[in-house]
Amino acid sequence: MNFPFLRAMNYLRNLPLVGLLLLSCSGAYLATADKPNVVILFADDAGYADFGFQEHARPDMAPLTPHIDSIASAGARFTQAYVTGAVCSPSLAGMMTGRYQERFGHETNLPPGTQTGLPLTETFGVKRLQDIGYYTGLIGKWHLGYPENFHPNRRGYAHFYGLLQGSRSYYPYEKPSRDRVIWRNNIPTEETGYVTDRLGDAACKFIEEHREDPFYLFVSFTAPHGPLQPRQGRYDYERIKHIEHEDRRHYAGLVVAMDDNVGKILATLENHGLSESTIVIFTNDNGGPGGKDSTSNFPLRGHKGSLYEGGVRVPWAMAWPSVIRPGTVVDTPVITMDILPTIFDASGEPIPEDWALDGDSLLPLVGVSPVAFPERTLYWRRHGSKGPIALQDANWKLLERNAPDGEPELYNLAQDIGEQHNIAIQHPDVLSRLQAKRAAWETQLVEPLWGPGSAGYQNNSD
Amino acid sequence: MNFPFLRAMNYLRNLPLVGLLLLSCSGAYLATADKPNVVILFADDAGYADFGFQEHARPDMAPLTPHIDSIASAGARFTQAYVTGAVCSPSLAGMMTGRYQERFGHETNLPPGTQTGLPLTETFGVKRLQDIGYYTGLIGKWHLGYPENFHPNRRGYAHFYGLLQGSRSYYPYEKPSRDRVIWRNNIPTEETGYVTDRLGDAACKFIEEHREDPFYLFVSFTAPHGPLQPRQGRYDYERIKHIEHEDRRHYAGLVVAMDDNVGKILATLENHGLSESTIVIFTNDNGGPGGKDSTSNFPLRGHKGSLYEGGVRVPWAMAWPSVIRPGTVVDTPVITMDILPTIFDASGEPIPEDWALDGDSLLPLVGVSPVAFPERTLYWRRHGSKGPIALQDANWKLLERNAPDGEPELYNLAQDIGEQHNIAIQHPDVLSRLQAKRAAWETQLVEPLWGPGSAGYQNNSD
Repeated sequence: MNFPFLRAMNYLRNLPLVGLLLLSCSGAYLATADKPNVVILFADDAGYADFGFQEHARPDMAPLTPHIDSIASAGARFTQAYVTGAVCSPSLAGMMTGRYQERFGHETNLPPGTQTGLPLTETFGVKRLQDIGYYTGLIGKWHLGYPENFHPNRRGYAHFYGLLQGSRSYYPYEKPSRDRVIWRNNIPTEETGYVTDRLGDAACKFIEEHREDPFYLFVSFTAPHGPLQPRQGRYDYERIKHIEHEDRRHYAGLVVAMDDNVGKILATLENHGLSESTIVIFTNDNGGPGGKDSTSNFPLRGHKGSLYEGGVRVPWAMAWPSVIRPGTVVDTPVITMDILPTIFDASGEPIPEDWALDGDSLLPLVGVSPVAFPERTLYWRRHGSKGPIALQDANWKLLERNAPDGEPELYNLAQDIGEQHNIAIQHPDVLSRLQAKRAAWETQLVEPLWGPGSAGYQNNSD
Repeated sequence: MNFPFLRAMNYLRNLPLVGLLLLSCSGAYLATADKPNVVILFADDAGYADFGFQEHARPDMAPLTPHIDSIASAGARFTQAYVTGAVCSPSLAGMMTGRYQERFGHETNLPPGTQTGLPLTETFGVKRLQDIGYYTGLIGKWHLGYPENFHPNRRGYAHFYGLLQGSRSYYPYEKPSRDRVIWRNNIPTEETGYVTDRLGDAACKFIEEHREDPFYLFVSFTAPHGPLQPRQGRYDYERIKHIEHEDRRHYAGLVVAMDDNVGKILATLENHGLSESTIVIFTNDNGGPGGKDSTSNFPLRGHKGSLYEGGVRVPWAMAWPSVIRPGTVVDTPVITMDILPTIFDASGEPIPEDWALDGDSLLPLVGVSPVAFPERTLYWRRHGSKGPIALQDANWKLLERNAPDGEPELYNLAQDIGEQHNIAIQHPDVLSRLQAKRAAWETQLVEPLWGPGSAGYQNNSD
């Protein structure tokens, strides 16, 4: 595939008068383009500051992610990007449907051994992508329902190579359980090799086999989620041995293996002449867990599970070399639900309103589409109508039912990214305006179908 | 395979009394060990200073070789390592036979279209390795004879995946010639993908398929030899764009792709539990060519084709994690002819004297063998008895028939690694001693069989 028209557009945009002209023919700019391929590279439990391309990259980790960094510098990095949930399964649920998962009760992680999953009443984005001609693949963790009727092949993934659970040993099990073995569609594969390498190899194979289709590939790494098992042997160790703390060093080993495999995937795209025409997005499922796993969310407050920025704000890089100008920096808040509308926009396909998607196309933010990006509010909730809830609006961040004393928290993220100064008392007008928004959003939600906040739930831990 | 005995030895060596004891049972230390696997990673035309692990690593290149660097830090780096020839084919000939190639007339590169190759009277080291049970593979360039009777499969390589020539396009040819197409043994393969990635993938496959054998794998990269064709697309570019000079930037792209593939090979070893029991050596076929290709041999004088250090001194890293202590630094001069004796030593196999090998086992230098490493002189010659000739002995370097005025050059490498101060006049005793050595060595040589210095050769360029 090629994007001669888009590339010409990209060049012409540099000329001020032509840029104006292009703005006037909104919508036409993608009419002649083929559908771009899409590769989503999704990390698990990575720290906000643990990638070289991040503004506050930790010096111990910054040199370890050259391939992931190359996505950001080849395209755009997003400085205020969010996931929809502060833990894995809800975060995946929001991204994969393009809708707030609180709308359909997928608000907490699936309980162990549950017979349910992402409600069958919801439509996966990949189903919609299949309808417009994409070949769809999931490589890696699923974590959205273990029984057969929730299987990825039933939800819109033509190809699945991965595990049903959210994490597993990086090394072979002697007797893997059904939900932790790695499946190729409905066939369990042999336990062999290091899991991150297996997923990377499978992703490269997928790209090679489907290079003639427009394809959508979701690479759902289990890395760098625990267990903290870097590749055994000396070679990776030599790259991370400068990190003194053992947990953080082992975590760095998980990141190094992930970055190597991202490099393999990018090289495979380049080898097949696909890199120009492929949208590549790297992000992460929730904030770093901190504590013993030793991720760094600096300078954010909180971690995985929290509605402070440290729980829901993530690194985000996006490249589309034929279209997005290298070195683009986007400060507008974005969220994983935006990915599906972005692909539809890039493919020149309209989105029916009755799908009731919650996200918006990112193309206006990366200098491609002349359409204005909407001003909007982003929301989060955990554990139902009695659990914490938060929203982000312009530079304001409101948290309610979050503090033990029940007092609302209001932060100005532009001045206080670390959420250190609750200024709710100083800004009663803002507080009440945002509380009204929060209340209006919450009327659209249902209670969680399982776990904390669900009917009859007894246990207080999530 | 495992080396419990060697590992215990390695530990025990730290205890002074036991160390003494071990010295007294020379020879027994390897008796119980299985044969180690061997992977030689051989670059082409890389600059001396262009790897992060080198003492004088150039800052623009140093961050680009994390995987190659990990070999040096996981094991040993050699600060004074040499090849036997200042250009590719002679250098390969010396390494692959374990003998000075001037002994058998393989003194210059093969002329284009020649019907000859490395003389059939010589035995390849891999033939000898096959005899002691190794499965042998060559992945990459051959460059030691194009006709069928010189084919790698006939010279001791059970498996061959590569090209007969010394270099080729990194991208597919429309109609590849017989000597530049990539062969799998005697079957030409489809032209597809980036050559360095193809060679890396083939090396990983070889390791997977032969993980149960003791194997010897020679990965003979065409990188970073010209043509200066980095991987197309944005992602590699983003890692090298800090390099302003276009040729050097493109050269860096070739190195980046090679390092990525070295990483894949090391990960494959680790994935199959083989890294501990595998000797890995990284080195390069001759000095960087300098000039338009923009390699850096700093702080050495000269470049590819020259008998100054810049032509024949190369980066050299060697790991054997179960045996060699990480961070070992070896300053003793070594040469590629030492590899074959090293493997025999590591395998506990004696070397018959009538093989007349010119190298020595490196194990005494890396703290493994208690045997003393011999004091020795290393020699080089180009273009026969009328061409330049050089030797290195202790810290002295003698060059004769090298300067236009024919005057001998004598350098003290310990004080003058850049060979700037010819001190032949100040040291007539040293000069005459080394000249006598040189003359004695030269009596053992034949004239080149082809090219400059050969009978009837007309053209003055090599």
